[in-house]
Amino acid sequence: MQGLINLERVGILGPRGTHSEAAAIRLNKILSLDRELVICAGIFEVLAAVENGELDAGFVPVENSLEGSVNITLDTLARSNSLVIYREFIWTVHNHLMAKDGVKISDVKKIFSHPQPLSQCRKFLQQTFSNVELAETTSTSRAAEIAASSELSDGYAAICSERAGDLNNLVMLASEIQDNDANRTRFFEVRRRSTKKSYVTTGDKILIICQIDGSHAGSLCEVLKEFAFRHVNMTRIESRPARTELGEYIFFFDLENNVDRRTLNDALGGVKRKSIWLKDLGTFPVISC
Amino acid sequence: MQGLINLERVGILGPRGTHSEAAAIRLNKILSLDRELVICAGIFEVLAAVENGELDAGFVPVENSLEGSVNITLDTLARSNSLVIYREFIWTVHNHLMAKDGVKISDVKKIFSHPQPLSQCRKFLQQTFSNVELAETTSTSRAAEIAASSELSDGYAAICSERAGDLNNLVMLASEIQDNDANRTRFFEVRRRSTKKSYVTTGDKILIICQIDGSHAGSLCEVLKEFAFRHVNMTRIESRPARTELGEYIFFFDLENNVDRRTLNDALGGVKRKSIWLKDLGTFPVISC
Repeated sequence: MQGLINLERVGILGPRGTHSEAAAIRLNKILSLDRELVICAGIFEVLAAVENGELDAGFVPVENSLEGSVNITLDTLARSNSLVIYREFIWTVHNHLMAKDGVKISDVKKIFSHPQPLSQCRKFLQQTFSNVELAETTSTSRAAEIAASSELSDGYAAICSERAGDLNNLVMLASEIQDNDANRTRFFEVRRRSTKKSYVTTGDKILIICQIDGSHAGSLCEVLKEFAFRHVNMTRIESRPARTELGEYIFFFDLENNVDRRTLNDALGGVKRKSIWLKDLGTFPVISC
Repeated sequence: MQGLINLERVGILGPRGTHSEAAAIRLNKILSLDRELVICAGIFEVLAAVENGELDAGFVPVENSLEGSVNITLDTLARSNSLVIYREFIWTVHNHLMAKDGVKISDVKKIFSHPQPLSQCRKFLQQTFSNVELAETTSTSRAAEIAASSELSDGYAAICSERAGDLNNLVMLASEIQDNDANRTRFFEVRRRSTKKSYVTTGDKILIICQIDGSHAGSLCEVLKEFAFRHVNMTRIESRPARTELGEYIFFFDLENNVDRRTLNDALGGVKRKSIWLKDLGTFPVISC
């Protein structure tokens, strides 16, 4: 019982069976962590529950290689003073065609899924199911539920994660049907800054958020120079509205932790002097799968 | 009749009564243009119809001061070789509370709108309607339709544009109810590159899209230096996934047309040499309202 009581509670975006849950389960397995995954209504709700201490950690998507940034994650991190990034997980999105046991590929008359997987599997669908009706659902989990509750004679199938299919007792008709192997999603595991284990200074990457006075080429270039001449590698720059006035932005810099701590601190000090404000969201390891 | 036949056809995002239509009508009025506004199913459809010659121009949102970039607009422009920006229009979003004639403020029992205006009018709603039920709709136009088709005794009202209210014969209960005056949206009027009147070299701004070899601080800084040391002002930088591999990006640079053409061409030449590819989306005037 002791172990059960002490299980860490990690918030994820629901419903069960989505790629968020599949990724969180996979991360737990890779790291041999026994943690409870708590379904929340949305990304904002996950992060708010971590901030107010209801949850030990949150596991939220931050970027997809095809769709780009997850804005609600970036905006919430930028506005919080208490959240830090504990680790990053890069997850390759796998889509499968699944149906009730007894439905064969040749029986399929209608395929359900979220618009994103439907678009990501377009080539497969055109080649194999050019005359089959496609129907959009609010999530891949919902698509799996619809397939599960249909009659065999309906010929319904769903494009979903293996986890969603398993939860609904579906069987695999075709696996890995996505057009593009580069469909990968980055997740952040986020914790409160105050918790002792949440903040480390070793790791693969650093996330910095800052607002620069004037977003013109000169001032941004001055900031980038602080990294460049110290050979701090930047893997990503992203801007989001400062929400004060059109034309004012905050910047997200993903940095590699590839220099010694003193040089890095010098770079951050330099950026801070050239910024209206700067937040260091922590140094964290990157796990890829 | 001659005039009617020659009316330019400009594609906009539907349905009628949305802020896109309200902005397009306002722009026509400011410039004294007599043009037909053609409702399209989505932003991609607007731009595709301009590309294939079905429409003379497209009028699409590109950025909101609170919500950030409109990704489908950026991604479609980046992938097209035939579209250029003809003008930019900056529109201040106005939200109003409107209802059927006969419904008074004190009668209101339920307020309908799209989630975005509901969130943008939160303070007003909390102060004036703390006990009134709020209901989400797919668009502000839909909210106006629901209010219009209700019984007076229902006490339904909608948060919508004045145009949506007018189309549904609603009257104004409270005007300009948004919390933040900084809620502004940038629109691009887009045309085919080949049409003679589409491409000018005078104007207020220039949009450049390019993919830089390696998105690390050093290479981006090298590109920004091409603008900075020639005093070309950059008003915005945005990145989007290159859709090849996680961690590869294309960049959008909004530049002020504040130097002579030769200096600007030198800067673009310098950026081009440091890029995998570069597209010049044109020089265009900015109209603000």
